[in-house]
Amino acid sequence: MKFLVINGPNLNLLGQREPELYGSQTLDDLNRDLAALGAKWSAELDFFQSNHEGQLVEAVHRLVKEYDGAVINAGAYSHTSLALRDAVLSVKKPVVEVHLTNPAAREHYRHRSFLAGAAVGSVCGFGAKSYELALYWLVSRGQL
Amino acid sequence: MKFLVINGPNLNLLGQREPELYGSQTLDDLNRDLAALGAKWSAELDFFQSNHEGQLVEAVHRLVKEYDGAVINAGAYSHTSLALRDAVLSVKKPVVEVHLTNPAAREHYRHRSFLAGAAVGSVCGFGAKSYELALYWLVSRGQL
Amino acid sequence: MKFLVINGPNLNLLGQREPELYGSQTLDDLNRDLAALGAKWSAELDFFQSNHEGQLVEAVHRLVKEYDGAVINAGAYSHTSLALRDAVLSVKKPVVEVHLTNPAAREHYRHRSFLAGAAVGSVCGFGAKSYELALYWLVSRGQL
Amino acid sequence: MKFLVINGPNLNLLGQREPELYGSQTLDDLNRDLAALGAKWSAELDFFQSNHEGQLVEAVHRLVKEYDGAVINAGAYSHTSLALRDAVLSVKKPVVEVHLTNPAAREHYRHRSFLAGAAVGSVCGFGAKSYELALYWLVSRGQL
Amino acid sequence: MKFLVINGPNLNLLGQREPELYGSQTLDDLNRDLAALGAKWSAELDFFQSNHEGQLVEAVHRLVKEYDGAVINAGAYSHTSLALRDAVLSVKKPVVEVHLTNPAAREHYRHRSFLAGAAVGSVCGFGAKSYELALYWLVSRGQL
Amino acid sequence: MKFLVINGPNLNLLGQREPELYGSQTLDDLNRDLAALGAKWSAELDFFQSNHEGQLVEAVHRLVKEYDGAVINAGAYSHTSLALRDAVLSVKKPVVEVHLTNPAAREHYRHRSFLAGAAVGSVCGFGAKSYELALYWLVSRGQL
Amino acid sequence: MKFLVINGPNLNLLGQREPELYGSQTLDDLNRDLAALGAKWSAELDFFQSNHEGQLVEAVHRLVKEYDGAVINAGAYSHTSLALRDAVLSVKKPVVEVHLTNPAAREHYRHRSFLAGAAVGSVCGFGAKSYELALYWLVSRGQL
Amino acid sequence: MKFLVINGPNLNLLGQREPELYGSQTLDDLNRDLAALGAKWSAELDFFQSNHEGQLVEAVHRLVKEYDGAVINAGAYSHTSLALRDAVLSVKKPVVEVHLTNPAAREHYRHRSFLAGAAVGSVCGFGAKSYELALYWLVSRGQL
Amino acid sequence: MKFLVINGPNLNLLGQREPELYGSQTLDDLNRDLAALGAKWSAELDFFQSNHEGQLVEAVHRLVKEYDGAVINAGAYSHTSLALRDAVLSVKKPVVEVHLTNPAAREHYRHRSFLAGAAVGSVCGFGAKSYELALYWLVSRGQL
Amino acid sequence: MKFLVINGPNLNLLGQREPELYGSQTLDDLNRDLAALGAKWSAELDFFQSNHEGQLVEAVHRLVKEYDGAVINAGAYSHTSLALRDAVLSVKKPVVEVHLTNPAAREHYRHRSFLAGAAVGSVCGFGAKSYELALYWLVSRGQL
Amino acid sequence: MKFLVINGPNLNLLGQREPELYGSQTLDDLNRDLAALGAKWSAELDFFQSNHEGQLVEAVHRLVKEYDGAVINAGAYSHTSLALRDAVLSVKKPVVEVHLTNPAAREHYRHRSFLAGAAVGSVCGFGAKSYELALYWLVSRGQL
Amino acid sequence: MKFLVINGPNLNLLGQREPELYGSQTLDDLNRDLAALGAKWSAELDFFQSNHEGQLVEAVHRLVKEYDGAVINAGAYSHTSLALRDAVLSVKKPVVEVHLTNPAAREHYRHRSFLAGAAVGSVCGFGAKSYELALYWLVSRGQL
Repeated sequence: MKFLVINGPNLNLLGQREPELYGSQTLDDLNRDLAALGAKWSAELDFFQSNHEGQLVEAVHRLVKEYDGAVINAGAYSHTSLALRDAVLSVKKPVVEVHLTNPAAREHYRHRSFLAGAAVGSVCGFGAKSYELALYWLVSRGQL
Repeated sequence: MKFLVINGPNLNLLGQREPELYGSQTLDDLNRDLAALGAKWSAELDFFQSNHEGQLVEAVHRLVKEYDGAVINAGAYSHTSLALRDAVLSVKKPVVEVHLTNPAAREHYRHRSFLAGAAVGSVCGFGAKSYELALYWLVSRGQL
Repeated sequence: MKFLVINGPNLNLLGQREPELYGSQTLDDLNRDLAALGAKWSAELDFFQSNHEGQLVEAVHRLVKEYDGAVINAGAYSHTSLALRDAVLSVKKPVVEVHLTNPAAREHYRHRSFLAGAAVGSVCGFGAKSYELALYWLVSRGQL
Repeated sequence: MKFLVINGPNLNLLGQREPELYGSQTLDDLNRDLAALGAKWSAELDFFQSNHEGQLVEAVHRLVKEYDGAVINAGAYSHTSLALRDAVLSVKKPVVEVHLTNPAAREHYRHRSFLAGAAVGSVCGFGAKSYELALYWLVSRGQL
Repeated sequence: MKFLVINGPNLNLLGQREPELYGSQTLDDLNRDLAALGAKWSAELDFFQSNHEGQLVEAVHRLVKEYDGAVINAGAYSHTSLALRDAVLSVKKPVVEVHLTNPAAREHYRHRSFLAGAAVGSVCGFGAKSYELALYWLVSRGQL
Repeated sequence: MKFLVINGPNLNLLGQREPELYGSQTLDDLNRDLAALGAKWSAELDFFQSNHEGQLVEAVHRLVKEYDGAVINAGAYSHTSLALRDAVLSVKKPVVEVHLTNPAAREHYRHRSFLAGAAVGSVCGFGAKSYELALYWLVSRGQL
Repeated sequence: MKFLVINGPNLNLLGQREPELYGSQTLDDLNRDLAALGAKWSAELDFFQSNHEGQLVEAVHRLVKEYDGAVINAGAYSHTSLALRDAVLSVKKPVVEVHLTNPAAREHYRHRSFLAGAAVGSVCGFGAKSYELALYWLVSRGQL
Repeated sequence: MKFLVINGPNLNLLGQREPELYGSQTLDDLNRDLAALGAKWSAELDFFQSNHEGQLVEAVHRLVKEYDGAVINAGAYSHTSLALRDAVLSVKKPVVEVHLTNPAAREHYRHRSFLAGAAVGSVCGFGAKSYELALYWLVSRGQL
Repeated sequence: MKFLVINGPNLNLLGQREPELYGSQTLDDLNRDLAALGAKWSAELDFFQSNHEGQLVEAVHRLVKEYDGAVINAGAYSHTSLALRDAVLSVKKPVVEVHLTNPAAREHYRHRSFLAGAAVGSVCGFGAKSYELALYWLVSRGQL
Repeated sequence: MKFLVINGPNLNLLGQREPELYGSQTLDDLNRDLAALGAKWSAELDFFQSNHEGQLVEAVHRLVKEYDGAVINAGAYSHTSLALRDAVLSVKKPVVEVHLTNPAAREHYRHRSFLAGAAVGSVCGFGAKSYELALYWLVSRGQL
Repeated sequence: MKFLVINGPNLNLLGQREPELYGSQTLDDLNRDLAALGAKWSAELDFFQSNHEGQLVEAVHRLVKEYDGAVINAGAYSHTSLALRDAVLSVKKPVVEVHLTNPAAREHYRHRSFLAGAAVGSVCGFGAKSYELALYWLVSRGQL
Repeated sequence: MKFLVINGPNLNLLGQREPELYGSQTLDDLNRDLAALGAKWSAELDFFQSNHEGQLVEAVHRLVKEYDGAVINAGAYSHTSLALRDAVLSVKKPVVEVHLTNPAAREHYRHRSFLAGAAVGSVCGFGAKSYELALYWLVSRGQL
């Protein structure tokens, strides 16, 4: 089993960006922990981060040939990118939306997610654990 | 560690109710599986289902003295009950919102959740696995 | 043939409550007349009134095993209860929504009905006759 | 007693038009059955169909001098014709709105009805039976 | 100088229709008075009433060749007919919108007027005098 | 008969202010013409202009004891002043709303008029003639 | 004179629930103080608290036969319960809405109150004093 | 192959009506050119114009028996006629919506088209060429 | 203790203005009664009424140096004056909003109050008693 | 004559992406057919596809110096990209918007097109034929 | 060069009013600094503050004859005063809108500015420096 | 002191793009003038333009290590890019939003700015002078 972990805009700043909201762990730390967990659960993980909507769209396209599913934290693009929604609807692989924080407890313009309706499901509000739960589901699903 | 698993309106019909949406497992099956998992993870689980908004509010009140957290699938009340939102804000215990289906992929009146903004986070769209992921987080949180 | 006639909040006050709107007949009068009509049309009727959303949800659940259909006047819950809508969608029995008055001729917050879209159809504005028409349909449907 | 049964736009296509929604009976069939029923119930019925908003307005005007009431399925004009609403408010005869389907279960632009608030009441969702119920009420009302 | 006085849907019922709102004068009375006034002011008047949106559109079209302007009470079509608005914009003759009642003091769906923005101006709320004022302007304008 | 002609904010600039919209006549010119007309029609006119919402409110209050009615062009306050609306509703004298231009043909925030619903009626879009028509009505009304 | 003091959802948690918002007094404390005040003012008070919308509806129904009026803090149900609004409209006894906090200074979904429009009036934002003021009015009203 | 070219309200004024928007060609010119093109492409064309919503509905009904498809410029009715939308959905022939101008570049009330969602597709903004493109598609479709 | 009682637009007409809504007591009567009550409760009261938004803003400014709090009935400015809201937020003295009538039971444009969210709390719907309750709170607060 | 054919996000997946909506032809197939048609009509075509909003903006910029016009299917960016709209408004070359499907018959968030109002016109709903019609217009326009 | 610096409601409280938002400098301090800067830049400044919408309107009127432009901080009236907007549109002198704070980062009802669209431009969020920047532009503009 | 001047989509076309709106100066001209001014004011400036949302996000990220602040004209992305807003909130350096034109005086979709609420402040409507004012503030701030 091989999954792609996709991170969107501003997530490269993790650890410095509003740490009271997003925590002090960097994206590299988070990815390293997740990779270790993947190894323990027999899942190979690739990681991709981009601030470019188009590159995120293309990362989703790569799912078709290269991966069994994806975890995606599209950051602000969750709320504004219809192109990303269309990309997820275009590939036939399971995609899980994650967020570090809980968008429903934040500003009103984060309450609508174009992405949420295209993903299988979403996991929000658990910090780095959101990725872990998403991976847990992808792995356990693969084992059924 | 002891958690309460709360299910809201119409979830007592699980297994017969729109099975193409909600699956064919009954609530008892689901609870039994979850209890087994809790046992494996050293967590004691209690289960409560009600079709009454007021009883759900009171179930949340019981968290204060009796539980270390809760998993709550409030069904339709997620979208209409401000009383339940206030209840969750009133107790100081971690509450995770779960849904079997992905509300963002359904009717527009399921897109707004009063409950979501009061919970720590939410897990939606993974069927019975939504509860499992929520429990996974509650347990792993207790172990840190 | 056996049908359940369900009445929602404040309908127990019928006869005293804003009689210029709702008429001077009590709910017992109304039910007695309807039962007589049912007897004439070979239909057995049970009656249930509650001011509790949860009890109305459960009354709808009882349709699965005990009734061939229902007449439901959900009163104010027609406009606010998504739980009741979900209940009606969950059982596979014909449910007819009735109202004594014509909601479209009243306050704007009575123009939207969560229940209407889940019922087979609705009969509104004919006072106690609304129930009679609904029963007429349930009976004639059973005879086809 | 003499009533006018008014049908609006596209109802002349009944039987061919989206039969999965509107059934396979033609408008002539429906009118014939209804006339028979009227005869049985001692009510004389006239029938009028038009695709023209203005003709429907004028049919309503004829109620003043010629009829004791009307059954009206205004089709799409229910949702867009304020002129028809004004016509119904202008005559002092009982008018019942009917629909073959249940507008509340269809597209959002069918949820608002200008006509509904001007009619005595409405009967929706019972196919050809909607007309029968409306007639039942007009007749029984005449007999009180 | 020659003007066309156009009346829209339900205005043929004037005198019988909600007399507490619209007065007890018939449309013939109103037109006769207005013709007398026109005669006194050296203006020839033609009168046209229709319940048909299309006929009203065509009446407006006739302004191009036959009239120096028009007084139009489009009734309910003021609020729903974009076709009538386009017609007024298409002819280059002065058109005055009139209403017997004051739409701003009535139901919210009478507050928006498609027609108002296309007319030179509007005169509302003065009963039959609304027409007189409109004629007064058309005549005095012609005399400048 | 004695009437008060009230002009609101920025109307003191008439003649210089956006003359392509409002014409080149000053407010004094306009008032002088109107006074002459009043004289001819046996009506005494007083004139009041203010840029202050409170002074306009108080001018309306003076109607109770001193005048038989008023013509009011409240300018921008038509659209924002609920206090002025309440003032007009408080006095029992006929008030006619006028506008030089046609608000319905201008920016959307001029389409709603708090004042319009409180006045007897309105006359809009005829430049200085709007006042003349309003006066015509007040005078002819007094003569009935 | 005898009044019912009704408290709605989550108010049983008073004293523990978000004390920075709602204060540290328990509901029992508050009721005891109010009963003392009632005694001083010759008014007998009964107290009722429920988290159930239906029980609150029924408490309001009891006013008809047993009380001269009521003070009601419906908590979150103020904003979502049309059934409670209908209940208050159904009984002919004076009902005063109270809130501990000032809803207008809180989240937008607390700005609309279904209950407020049905009550005689409301008293909001004075903590426990809100009840006292409401009682003051009920008593002084009874003494006129 | 035989197609019907339907033109709606005010299009009979083509050539005189706001020529800066709609061009100086009359509807007869436009139809003649289109007929010539149809002849070249072996397609027989009939032409119908009406300012009456009901006649346009009935023109669409004629497609069932007499034509292989239609080009329709419904003018203002595109934006207000649900009856026309229903008519197009009722017949099973390909209908192409055309507009001379580009509604998306005009007033906001032309941005919503009831008709657009019922047609196979739409061609807007190319003046008389819009019809030509629509015909091109109908013909080439017939040749596949 | 010294308080300022502020009354806004049109309240100088009290007693004559829509007496069925606002009662027949004049503002002077109301103030005299309130002053007497203040005297009994050892509170000195000043009174100020203005129809000018700016003067009301400045009356609020005077609280800083001269008063221990205020009762304010801002009339229509409650709903339209952001300047008044800012004034109340700028001074650090307790301000209580009062209304004679219950705005929630009136027109929709009276449901939003800019002032309410800036005041400590509000008392609405009790006629002149609204002022008395507000004073009761200000006094009892000063005594704690 | 030389035109640029621009395709936006996810259109590189054509043929695999939701083929029931978008057909089974790949973008290369579509481009090849269009190039052949261009050759037949003496028009040189260049093709550009990108998932990047910025690259699409820059492709539009290239029109200024290198092309006589463009056909653009901006996919999801039609609905969210104001930058693309500004780009089209910035260059003075004819741009035709095309869509394979008919956005008006799809989800509500596809009903608004930022791009549509900036383009000369649009052609929607004809599959690959949408491009052909757009090219037909560009070519025939060049030949006038 | 001579400019008028206009300050609106509550700005006379500067220094005491919510100093965490608006700073501790008084309006006199601010004006003194600005006058010094004007002197250095050869610009004469007059200063005007008022809490009265009407006086602000009239201050803007004075620009016509007495000033080369204005800096205006209309405070809360920016968001509610259409009269002020009209005043700025009526005079042909450059007006710059300033705000001490950044309205876009504050409450939603401060996001709409009637004034902004009438001014040449706006400078917001720089505290007292906002005035300085506006003056800088007025001066440098005068020097070109 | 070192600042970054960031320009967004379509600003590379400055001088050719709608010159009646944006002026005839190219971006290079504008940057050269600004650099000269920076030199005079002892501030080093770097310049960056991109049509890519992602590159603009990353330019903002560079502020953390390399600059003391930024001037940003995000063009159309001001209104649609939540990612850019998040980027500005993520870095702790002062960012000033500028616009050449005054968005409040243009189309309604330019009235909302995601960016404005994240920036320190904004300067809009002064053409190239908008940048100069922003720089003036950044420099004078650095000198305090």
